[in-house]
Amino acid sequence: MEMKTISAEQLKHVCVEILKSVGANNEEADIVADSLVKANLRGVDSHGVIRLEVYVNRVKYKTIIPGAPIKIVRETSSTALVDGSHGFGQVIAVKAMKIAIEKAKKTGVGAVGVFNTNHFGMLAYYALIALQEDMISLITTNGSPFVVPWGGRVPMLGTNPICIGIPSNQEIPIILDMATSAAARGKIEKAAKEGAKIPADWAVDEEGKPTTDPVAALKGALLPFGGPKGYGLSFIIDILSGCLTGAAFGQHVISLYPEDKNGTLGHFILAINPETFIGVKEFKTAVAKAVQEIKACPTAPNVPEVLVPGEIEYRTEQKRLKEGIPMGSETWRIIEKLCKETGVKI
Amino acid sequence: MEMKTISAEQLKHVCVEILKSVGANNEEADIVADSLVKANLRGVDSHGVIRLEVYVNRVKYKTIIPGAPIKIVRETSSTALVDGSHGFGQVIAVKAMKIAIEKAKKTGVGAVGVFNTNHFGMLAYYALIALQEDMISLITTNGSPFVVPWGGRVPMLGTNPICIGIPSNQEIPIILDMATSAAARGKIEKAAKEGAKIPADWAVDEEGKPTTDPVAALKGALLPFGGPKGYGLSFIIDILSGCLTGAAFGQHVISLYPEDKNGTLGHFILAINPETFIGVKEFKTAVAKAVQEIKACPTAPNVPEVLVPGEIEYRTEQKRLKEGIPMGSETWRIIEKLCKETGVKI
Repeated sequence: MEMKTISAEQLKHVCVEILKSVGANNEEADIVADSLVKANLRGVDSHGVIRLEVYVNRVKYKTIIPGAPIKIVRETSSTALVDGSHGFGQVIAVKAMKIAIEKAKKTGVGAVGVFNTNHFGMLAYYALIALQEDMISLITTNGSPFVVPWGGRVPMLGTNPICIGIPSNQEIPIILDMATSAAARGKIEKAAKEGAKIPADWAVDEEGKPTTDPVAALKGALLPFGGPKGYGLSFIIDILSGCLTGAAFGQHVISLYPEDKNGTLGHFILAINPETFIGVKEFKTAVAKAVQEIKACPTAPNVPEVLVPGEIEYRTEQKRLKEGIPMGSETWRIIEKLCKETGVKI
Repeated sequence: MEMKTISAEQLKHVCVEILKSVGANNEEADIVADSLVKANLRGVDSHGVIRLEVYVNRVKYKTIIPGAPIKIVRETSSTALVDGSHGFGQVIAVKAMKIAIEKAKKTGVGAVGVFNTNHFGMLAYYALIALQEDMISLITTNGSPFVVPWGGRVPMLGTNPICIGIPSNQEIPIILDMATSAAARGKIEKAAKEGAKIPADWAVDEEGKPTTDPVAALKGALLPFGGPKGYGLSFIIDILSGCLTGAAFGQHVISLYPEDKNGTLGHFILAINPETFIGVKEFKTAVAKAVQEIKACPTAPNVPEVLVPGEIEYRTEQKRLKEGIPMGSETWRIIEKLCKETGVKI
């Protein structure tokens, strides 16, 4: 398989042009392209430009509406409920995070719920915005059902990710960004293609039994990570993202597919201002010390070092900023196809 | 082994009298006893009256100070930083939760950090207080190091629990209350006594290798639940509970032991008012629907039903309210010893 490499700048430019060609305004094209390329830079390729095809299709189906107004429908000094009017998920979430940050600057905390929104890509993107303002952030979203509740055999939950960003004096941005499923469906698809087995705690077959056969797993459903605890967390994330915001929850959530149906997912976004607790400077110093100490932990056999949340992604970003972003053949096919369709030149 | 049974009312009365005899005032004795007995009622016996001996010892060592003032040292409309002055952890946390709730009533969210505090028992106790006011709550604490970071071989993290409570129209209070360690140390001690093996993902030996030998595990350290994801969550909980509040973090945290050293743990407590989002009534209705739907999920083989967070504990409470609380021999020994020392009659 040929592996092309492209600079982040070039890749973003292509994405911006494609998005503008289908009707996104300058700001929307910039935010969505920036989010996708940032995901590729951080090695989260599943949430990178490979998603652009679906977004473009959804714009054609009018299930993503460029220029859609983002309206605050309920508000207090520390909270807001945001109606995204089915615009680009990234654009809505950036606005929601900025609202949360503004409120946290004034009252110490800002909590924002979002509905009538769309798939918003890599959650860490919003944590990075909060870090620029020295804010702790928590971001959740629900998604289409792929995951069984613990003990169940029918998918009722999304991969329901949670992301938490922590300001520090460390060079590495501390960002925990994780799905609450044990593994991504894409990894199981890859194992199926390669005829490989999967770990027994990733998925169940159609009867709800744990399976190491990826083909059986694809007919079944994903398992939550960490057993009943991960299931509990996923259920809570569904409630915060869906029930609290007026979006859909459980089996009713539509995220990317079908492309011609409006997204019914929801997001929950929280910003906390450390200045109103121990103080920003003191907090960042304490976190840097915590990071240094935990990284100095003696390691288990064959483990080179203890990592902190976000460290792998940060290192990948530094590497890819220098060496360019490697493009998988499928991603490249999508970019070429979209360029051809929209008349954008690579 | 003889198993005595005692009513919640009787057990609470004994605890109140013991606490008052060592200097707790009426309010303190009532809160601490109520929290311990509530844990026993909910089947969380590890955080029940078995803890009373340590609390009494800490009062003797003046590392728990009855009547200690609880001071707000920094405050905004939505946040507070609370200095517990080394009082009873439960009393301080109840106060902190009430502050968070009052702020959430006014601004939609209340976030409270706590330092100079003590072990505060079962986290669900504070979620239950928030549920009485129709508030979503999130409670975290850090603790003494028993858990390795992922890839490490020296304990650097506490069992760092997190609890989230969700109001609903369901009879069952939805409360996710979980340690971020894979298992409690007590379970490993039990396996060691019984000569049983433990699952390979519970603990590591002194070299940091996963072990099924409970004796080797007790010389080693606990593993976080759910691999690197659970580790990440534990680290974040340490940061929110410790770094944000000015309490200790990582290896520096003192919780129950040594009894003659001041506790250096910290708590983070958040209350969110659903009224400022979709509305309390609408939220509780949506959550009840989500609960009903997920409980209706077809089950895997040999699984009688899908449970929601807090369901087992609620059922245990209903049973123990009727039939009384079964007292393990160790718990009973402690109660008898404390009664003898303090002159309290059972």
